[in-house]
Amino acid sequence: MENKRKPYQLVSREWKQSDTVIELKNTRIGAGSFSVIAGPCAVENEDQIFTICEFLSKFQIKLLRGGAYKPRTSPYSFQGLKKEGLKLLRQAADKYEMEVVTEVMDTNLVDEVAEYADVLQVGTRNMQNYQLLRALSKINKPVLLKRGMSSTLEEWLLAAEYILSGGNNNVILCERGIRTFETATRNTLDLSMVPLVKSLSHLPIIVDPSQGTGLRDLITPMSLASIAAGADGLILEVHNHPDEAMSDGDQSLYFDQFSDLMKKVQNTSEFFGKTVDFESEKVLR
Amino acid sequence: MENKRKPYQLVSREWKQSDTVIELKNTRIGAGSFSVIAGPCAVENEDQIFTICEFLSKFQIKLLRGGAYKPRTSPYSFQGLKKEGLKLLRQAADKYEMEVVTEVMDTNLVDEVAEYADVLQVGTRNMQNYQLLRALSKINKPVLLKRGMSSTLEEWLLAAEYILSGGNNNVILCERGIRTFETATRNTLDLSMVPLVKSLSHLPIIVDPSQGTGLRDLITPMSLASIAAGADGLILEVHNHPDEAMSDGDQSLYFDQFSDLMKKVQNTSEFFGKTVDFESEKVLR
Amino acid sequence: MENKRKPYQLVSREWKQSDTVIELKNTRIGAGSFSVIAGPCAVENEDQIFTICEFLSKFQIKLLRGGAYKPRTSPYSFQGLKKEGLKLLRQAADKYEMEVVTEVMDTNLVDEVAEYADVLQVGTRNMQNYQLLRALSKINKPVLLKRGMSSTLEEWLLAAEYILSGGNNNVILCERGIRTFETATRNTLDLSMVPLVKSLSHLPIIVDPSQGTGLRDLITPMSLASIAAGADGLILEVHNHPDEAMSDGDQSLYFDQFSDLMKKVQNTSEFFGKTVDFESEKVLR
Amino acid sequence: MENKRKPYQLVSREWKQSDTVIELKNTRIGAGSFSVIAGPCAVENEDQIFTICEFLSKFQIKLLRGGAYKPRTSPYSFQGLKKEGLKLLRQAADKYEMEVVTEVMDTNLVDEVAEYADVLQVGTRNMQNYQLLRALSKINKPVLLKRGMSSTLEEWLLAAEYILSGGNNNVILCERGIRTFETATRNTLDLSMVPLVKSLSHLPIIVDPSQGTGLRDLITPMSLASIAAGADGLILEVHNHPDEAMSDGDQSLYFDQFSDLMKKVQNTSEFFGKTVDFESEKVLR
Repeated sequence: MENKRKPYQLVSREWKQSDTVIELKNTRIGAGSFSVIAGPCAVENEDQIFTICEFLSKFQIKLLRGGAYKPRTSPYSFQGLKKEGLKLLRQAADKYEMEVVTEVMDTNLVDEVAEYADVLQVGTRNMQNYQLLRALSKINKPVLLKRGMSSTLEEWLLAAEYILSGGNNNVILCERGIRTFETATRNTLDLSMVPLVKSLSHLPIIVDPSQGTGLRDLITPMSLASIAAGADGLILEVHNHPDEAMSDGDQSLYFDQFSDLMKKVQNTSEFFGKTVDFESEKVLR
Repeated sequence: MENKRKPYQLVSREWKQSDTVIELKNTRIGAGSFSVIAGPCAVENEDQIFTICEFLSKFQIKLLRGGAYKPRTSPYSFQGLKKEGLKLLRQAADKYEMEVVTEVMDTNLVDEVAEYADVLQVGTRNMQNYQLLRALSKINKPVLLKRGMSSTLEEWLLAAEYILSGGNNNVILCERGIRTFETATRNTLDLSMVPLVKSLSHLPIIVDPSQGTGLRDLITPMSLASIAAGADGLILEVHNHPDEAMSDGDQSLYFDQFSDLMKKVQNTSEFFGKTVDFESEKVLR
Repeated sequence: MENKRKPYQLVSREWKQSDTVIELKNTRIGAGSFSVIAGPCAVENEDQIFTICEFLSKFQIKLLRGGAYKPRTSPYSFQGLKKEGLKLLRQAADKYEMEVVTEVMDTNLVDEVAEYADVLQVGTRNMQNYQLLRALSKINKPVLLKRGMSSTLEEWLLAAEYILSGGNNNVILCERGIRTFETATRNTLDLSMVPLVKSLSHLPIIVDPSQGTGLRDLITPMSLASIAAGADGLILEVHNHPDEAMSDGDQSLYFDQFSDLMKKVQNTSEFFGKTVDFESEKVLR
Repeated sequence: MENKRKPYQLVSREWKQSDTVIELKNTRIGAGSFSVIAGPCAVENEDQIFTICEFLSKFQIKLLRGGAYKPRTSPYSFQGLKKEGLKLLRQAADKYEMEVVTEVMDTNLVDEVAEYADVLQVGTRNMQNYQLLRALSKINKPVLLKRGMSSTLEEWLLAAEYILSGGNNNVILCERGIRTFETATRNTLDLSMVPLVKSLSHLPIIVDPSQGTGLRDLITPMSLASIAAGADGLILEVHNHPDEAMSDGDQSLYFDQFSDLMKKVQNTSEFFGKTVDFESEKVLR
């Protein structure tokens, strides 16, 4: 591996040896910090997002996730609240001093999403949407780049290279599972990407065990495994009523599961020498 | 399979029993006709595209393919001539009475591409780019929808459903191979999709053996196999100088291979009861 | 591909340029002949196997398939009639002048199976059972080697190399589909292997569309596609009562489907310049 | 998942709620103990195996791995020392009070391997070699059952069911990576299987990060991730001269890497509430 000439440059360790740290208003991603991004799969209504944010604020969670524009396999599925969802995310985040991480699905939505979000997410289906990557290379906000559901590591790093080569160095990689023939899990979470990305690139990498497994009971063990593998953070789906969620309810954590997980994440991160960007102890002790 | 409730509707045979036929100025796709779309992977310059079109015109090929905007894995690879490429395609097609099939990569390029092209192609990486699919559902030109490189049949039909549900019924499906662990071929061409699509949907389906195998020596046998499986056509890469092509040279046919293939495609199509939309015999006899 | 040093030798075209032909008592496989191997997935009882053979004899089918020892995913599934099944296969084949193709699952069964069978089949799960391959390299009967369900072409050819390197040159390769994430079909039949094997090796290659698709309605188109791709034959599941079959009923042809298919196979083979080793016309005209 | 009727029984949590513990002479697998099985990929000669065992004995490693019969993709690759290899493993293990874990490739080798080994390993290529599984169901030694390289969880549990249903309850499952389209790693280590197996079955599960990644630099992070995911142990390749190893040198740990790893494994296991079955501290303090 070491000797093969790499097709990417700016994302490589050879180009930049020190870890890239993503600086946000209230927190940072990378640099020995372990980050938790949490929230519902989709923003559904005002009550839902404020209820979830209030819950997350007990842990001083800094990063709120939530889909406003939702890429859905069927045109007949709930497609998100769109601009209304962005506004709700912003209001809820502002009230609870959080920052918004949300998906941008298309070049012509970049300006709108960038107006409300602090971190723009590229979903798995758009990892090789090069026009979108180029558009995101021109904004001055961080990009969370999910791995394509059947992409190789090299393709993923080249997708990040599109963003860096256009001038935006603030890219966070996110392993979210790849498609395999295994049907017991929704995807196969490929944690080996964590140390491999760390060795090949200076970019931070986080893990999405919700999408990666599709089963809420696997989220805690896979979250701890992600920490042990060296990840810089997690992105988690949590919902006040998972059983009534408009999308992906099976993989959304119940509030009490989330509380238990945060305590374990904090302890495990500290064991592995990282500080967490939230606080589980006040609530739990 | 028959009893499972299908998540798509407008694309299904239950919704519309008769085969959808795509009517173009000079030809049609579907309806017992076997179509050949041919041309280079990418438009490289005026000389190249006119030379290739002149060659194709000997067979009265009606449909010209060629990339103007090219989705490339690396930001440092040739990205296509863009608008200049579209113009060259149009000029060459007009001179030789052909119609232009070319890829549209992004919503903000739909108008521009639609100005020059007769059929707008959605590439494998954009099969689930839903904003793009919605934009294409509002134009009055046919869409050639390639299968995502790791998509299932159901996801593919649902992507087509996005286009039909927005009002554009003129969708041509294109099997172009899926990603597997096999490394001897670039992709694994999944010809079983041809009869399966035919049984589940009224839409025409063509096959791309160039992308599907990545090896020019496999294109002839896989083209004939596509006919035998019931496909409505082929999309083929052919180049005047494959060894100097700016992209995908290994899978581009030499002119003499193309001539030989056209003769076989014509004979085989006729054996299977189809008429071809070109004429190989005049040249070859 | 041409320039890469190949890890196999005896199976390669470089080692032996002329096609290997498998000579059997009543027929041959390879050499411009198109072979049909047919029969039930499993021998179930005397009545079943004799009824099916009588039917097949109308077409003068020369090669009878049928499982006596069945590898089953569950220990609680029907495992085959074992030695009793071998005897029934032999009796039925002898009565109707057919030759027996049946699976051998283990080294300690090689002698027993070789006593009753004319061609010994290695199933997909045993493609890399090297002790079994070595044992089969020492017998003087042909071996039908199915591709492993997730094996690459190179691994498959190396499995054949085990048999040839031990002294048995009579190997027939069989493409039977690989495992992918597609769930609409049981496996993904990879027909590109047919021309690729033909270019790299002198061994004959046949196709199993029954296992390869798992859906009986796909068997006819995929059989004809196999011929067009250059295959040397087919192995087909046919049953007198598919809906009551003890295994794989969904992919077993009804008798009338088989009759129709044989006529098409004969016509298509002749179109592609091959003679078939059976006779569909007497029955059908 | 919970509601689907499971096709296996004896391996399920419903059948037996308490964790199965594999009792060996010097150690146990399962039951809150974290086990390390270590040794070379293949036994190469007396000096090699005794040198490695002496090294492992410093950590009081209880379980020695080493291949005597090696399943190799090519018939021309080193196939192992066979019976001589078994004898060397036994002698070295006896000298250093270790137990032998080694692969059995075929039914006719079961008696021979069982004479020398304490735990019989079924390799990934033989996971669905049902005759072998049945033979192993009749011995009174534990079986380490590796996951097939493209098998699903259900198929894997059914393979274990073959062994339990024949009367041998002492099965250890081993996740060793599955085949995907990712080429940066040898396989894709699927750690989600660890908590999923724990929820569905009472059998212990260990992880093979050497085979699972193919890259020695990934072994430490993936070993720690395995502990965090809840695994009962690891199987590791270590070699006195990895660069000269006769097989799989790229994934074999150097001695100093192994020392460092053992310390981390011990600390991490204890953090997660498990006791290790070796002792890293004496050497390392």
